[in-house]
Amino acid sequence: MSAFTVDGLHETAPGAEAGGEADVGLLAGGGGGPAALRPLLGTVLAALERGAVERGGPLPAGGPREVSWRVRAAAGAVLPEVGAGAGAALDALVGAVAAGAADPAEPLCAAHLHCPPLAVAAAADVAASALNPSMDSWDQAPAASTLEAMVCRELARLVFPDVEGADGAAGTDGAAGAIDAEADAGARSGPGTDALADTYTDTKTGAGAGPDALVTSGGTEANQLGLLLARQAARAVGGQVRVVCGANAHHSVHRSAWLLGLAPPLVVPTPRGVLEPEALGVALDGLEGAPALVVATAGTTDTGDVDPLAELVGVARGHGARVHVDAAYGGPLLFSERLRGRLAGLRWADSVSFDLHKLGWQPVAAGFFAVPDGAALRPLEHCADYLNADDDTEAGLPDLLGRSLRTTRRPDVLKVAVTLRALGRAGMAGLVERTCAAAVQLAELVAGTEGFELYARPALSTVVFRPVGGDDALVAGVRRRLLERGQAVLGRASLGGGLWWKVTLLNPLVAPSDLAALVKLVEEAVEEAVVKEAVAEEAVVEGADA
Amino acid sequence: MSAFTVDGLHETAPGAEAGGEADVGLLAGGGGGPAALRPLLGTVLAALERGAVERGGPLPAGGPREVSWRVRAAAGAVLPEVGAGAGAALDALVGAVAAGAADPAEPLCAAHLHCPPLAVAAAADVAASALNPSMDSWDQAPAASTLEAMVCRELARLVFPDVEGADGAAGTDGAAGAIDAEADAGARSGPGTDALADTYTDTKTGAGAGPDALVTSGGTEANQLGLLLARQAARAVGGQVRVVCGANAHHSVHRSAWLLGLAPPLVVPTPRGVLEPEALGVALDGLEGAPALVVATAGTTDTGDVDPLAELVGVARGHGARVHVDAAYGGPLLFSERLRGRLAGLRWADSVSFDLHKLGWQPVAAGFFAVPDGAALRPLEHCADYLNADDDTEAGLPDLLGRSLRTTRRPDVLKVAVTLRALGRAGMAGLVERTCAAAVQLAELVAGTEGFELYARPALSTVVFRPVGGDDALVAGVRRRLLERGQAVLGRASLGGGLWWKVTLLNPLVAPSDLAALVKLVEEAVEEAVVKEAVAEEAVVEGADA
Repeated sequence: MSAFTVDGLHETAPGAEAGGEADVGLLAGGGGGPAALRPLLGTVLAALERGAVERGGPLPAGGPREVSWRVRAAAGAVLPEVGAGAGAALDALVGAVAAGAADPAEPLCAAHLHCPPLAVAAAADVAASALNPSMDSWDQAPAASTLEAMVCRELARLVFPDVEGADGAAGTDGAAGAIDAEADAGARSGPGTDALADTYTDTKTGAGAGPDALVTSGGTEANQLGLLLARQAARAVGGQVRVVCGANAHHSVHRSAWLLGLAPPLVVPTPRGVLEPEALGVALDGLEGAPALVVATAGTTDTGDVDPLAELVGVARGHGARVHVDAAYGGPLLFSERLRGRLAGLRWADSVSFDLHKLGWQPVAAGFFAVPDGAALRPLEHCADYLNADDDTEAGLPDLLGRSLRTTRRPDVLKVAVTLRALGRAGMAGLVERTCAAAVQLAELVAGTEGFELYARPALSTVVFRPVGGDDALVAGVRRRLLERGQAVLGRASLGGGLWWKVTLLNPLVAPSDLAALVKLVEEAVEEAVVKEAVAEEAVVEGADA
Repeated sequence: MSAFTVDGLHETAPGAEAGGEADVGLLAGGGGGPAALRPLLGTVLAALERGAVERGGPLPAGGPREVSWRVRAAAGAVLPEVGAGAGAALDALVGAVAAGAADPAEPLCAAHLHCPPLAVAAAADVAASALNPSMDSWDQAPAASTLEAMVCRELARLVFPDVEGADGAAGTDGAAGAIDAEADAGARSGPGTDALADTYTDTKTGAGAGPDALVTSGGTEANQLGLLLARQAARAVGGQVRVVCGANAHHSVHRSAWLLGLAPPLVVPTPRGVLEPEALGVALDGLEGAPALVVATAGTTDTGDVDPLAELVGVARGHGARVHVDAAYGGPLLFSERLRGRLAGLRWADSVSFDLHKLGWQPVAAGFFAVPDGAALRPLEHCADYLNADDDTEAGLPDLLGRSLRTTRRPDVLKVAVTLRALGRAGMAGLVERTCAAAVQLAELVAGTEGFELYARPALSTVVFRPVGGDDALVAGVRRRLLERGQAVLGRASLGGGLWWKVTLLNPLVAPSDLAALVKLVEEAVEEAVVKEAVAEEAVVEGADA
């Protein structure tokens, strides 16, 4: 082989043959990967530490223009002719991104459904990067595909506990159930079927029915899958599906309909924040029996409200409509015995989106799309001879291509599997409960603060409030001011024609003192803005006088 | 705050208040994140090392059933009631996934466009997991969004070097160009525009034209975007776009058309492996001027062949058709001065897919979708008041929602930025050249081996061959036998009505001895299969005799 030196990766590039000195430390995988990663990870951790100190708060001060300048200055040329070397590049760029992060692990970074990841999940994710399994064929991910099948089945059973799968396993102790089921399947099965077929739903044969889930990039992709399956079901009977959702539904419902070539969703007003059964009934009556998909929400983005799922399913069924529930936010309440009642009726949906990168504390992405019966996933069946040729599938190689609309796909399931195993159901429940309790505490604090108006008692972990009487410009201005100064990341919500601040609590470690500090900060910013405006008005008056 | 203990994360769960002893080490971010990650990363690296030793080859032996059993045994219950703790969970599950991986860092794992990631990229990716920026709004990713804009512009300029952007920067030293441009923009701009607007294309205003790119989950999503923009362009003039592609095109072209509600692509036969200009002309003639999108391929999945892009663009333009080039595989040849000529004509496309998780050595995902003018991305414009309200955008907060069809989105760009900076253009070029040279070497070895037939001289890094004269069952059987035994991961390709072995070389460290070992392994497996068949036939004859 000709000798190409890999400039920039090593202090000395001795122009060695492949396998020579210059190649040591190049790759993350193989036997030498961990040794190559060790010093580089040290550099990353040091840069993260330095960046957090440099930032000194929930986000960098200065606003977009200044942050942009600082990143450019630190980063240098994006694609220099000669590389800077691994250590220097990691130090500069990880440091810049850390110093310029809106870090959700900081208690005052609480605007969005943007969670602080668990250390255990972030650590597990390194193995996904290093081994790089790709989830589109078994021979790129032999073990990871088994793990994905196990986790997907288990999480689907959490959503649909009543539905008995072909393997008869239900409840939370699914792995044991799955192993029993496999022994079972071994007894039942002739040659040509295999252990995995009983775990993964085979989209070609529908084998392995019972609750199942697909891994998605988030609620947006999961909602898209919900609409897509409804589109295909309607097409199968020669119809066009109409999506019906509340005004409180996530924007991705609209975007998915557009992407899939469907008519824009029929939007039902939600004056009380949730989709109401009566209003839904009226909307469905108007469709006169045309195929419809009702999209309900368990945890709206603006307020965390949960639609009355059981009643909505009843109304939809009465009209022959399908139901997809976007539980991207609220879904993980299922881990908690105390809180799961808030999702009553979820189990009767035709499909459910839920994310573990919101409540669930995973690094992005960790989305899921669950169905009560894996056979429902058959419309996603897809063949590409190099990945799932019929003779390979018949010979026992699992067919994975129907498990996603993506082809190459990262094993996001690994970090999820490690987290669930590390914390257990009780540990996950504890974090969910703690986070929701913090929201109640913040709501009480806001309600007790003169000059602030609380929107409602929090349904999940979102607290919405504003200056008494409302003042849209003030709300928007205070939010931007806190961002510019690097003091806090607050969200915003337009509700009932007015603008509100939104605090989405997703940090299970938030302390009472953090919540008090947040309220005080907003109070001070309001006061300052009001004073500033008064001064400006006075100046105008004086100017007029002069 | 009520005290919820986080069972399973710690040996002792003292039921502390938030912020107490039980919480130390919980989160990956914040000031304490790096200290929490350090020991857990040590556990991960040890488990990766152990798993590689246990596997002892490119993939685990035993085939799907046995691998599945081993993973289940190691994993235990997916969701136990009480957690096993972070260390135990990482050790068990990372170990199982490593032991059961098809590791592309092993030279005999060479079936798919499935690359061994660089250690520097995998290390950088940890920062993405720990800080968890989400790329759907500035206030979730202040620095990461700037970095993404910089990298996207730079890579787009690599694809479209002729096109002068509004900032006048072209060529490879883009960061310097961008900074100049910004100084420029500062001089030109009034209040309300900002530094970032000159880097990110603003989909609302079209500001910041010139080549631009979006980050995607891979070639599949990028191809989908190419079709989507063509669909919208046709709709804008009241038409329906027809996709026209070669029989050699990636399956995602067909799947995207289905997803988007378009007619199935018109498929042009490619008897010589590439889409031929004459045949394309005939196909376009048949459409009689209806809006068309031609999808060409720069690096087919089966053989790595590159369509004659310049000629195809000429034919398409002559028919008023748009051109999308799927350069998911071949795109990174642009880094190499010696090899980029193979992509002549790419720069005249309307849009281009290219991945850095193939040639580019990134952990999945690292896809890009490039356009010669960022204004072309406007149809992706999308508004969600909580993420990009007009008054926020007017006040200078960058609008990121039009940068993807996803909402929550991991900063995959960080690892890419670190890699480009670490290796430089020359370093990337060296790896690409080295990998392509290895393919030529393997092809020569195969051509010189009695009993093997080489399909063609490799166009990129894919080598296709079969037993002389062809024997589909033998090809499929040998491939599966090598998989079952954990000896090698070979791919397969159906070409000209016959089945071939496919070796996709993506490991820049593959040595001549590895290539020789691979050829020998296939030879032996063939011999064994032929002997086995002969024995079986003899047995049948004997049985008939008995």
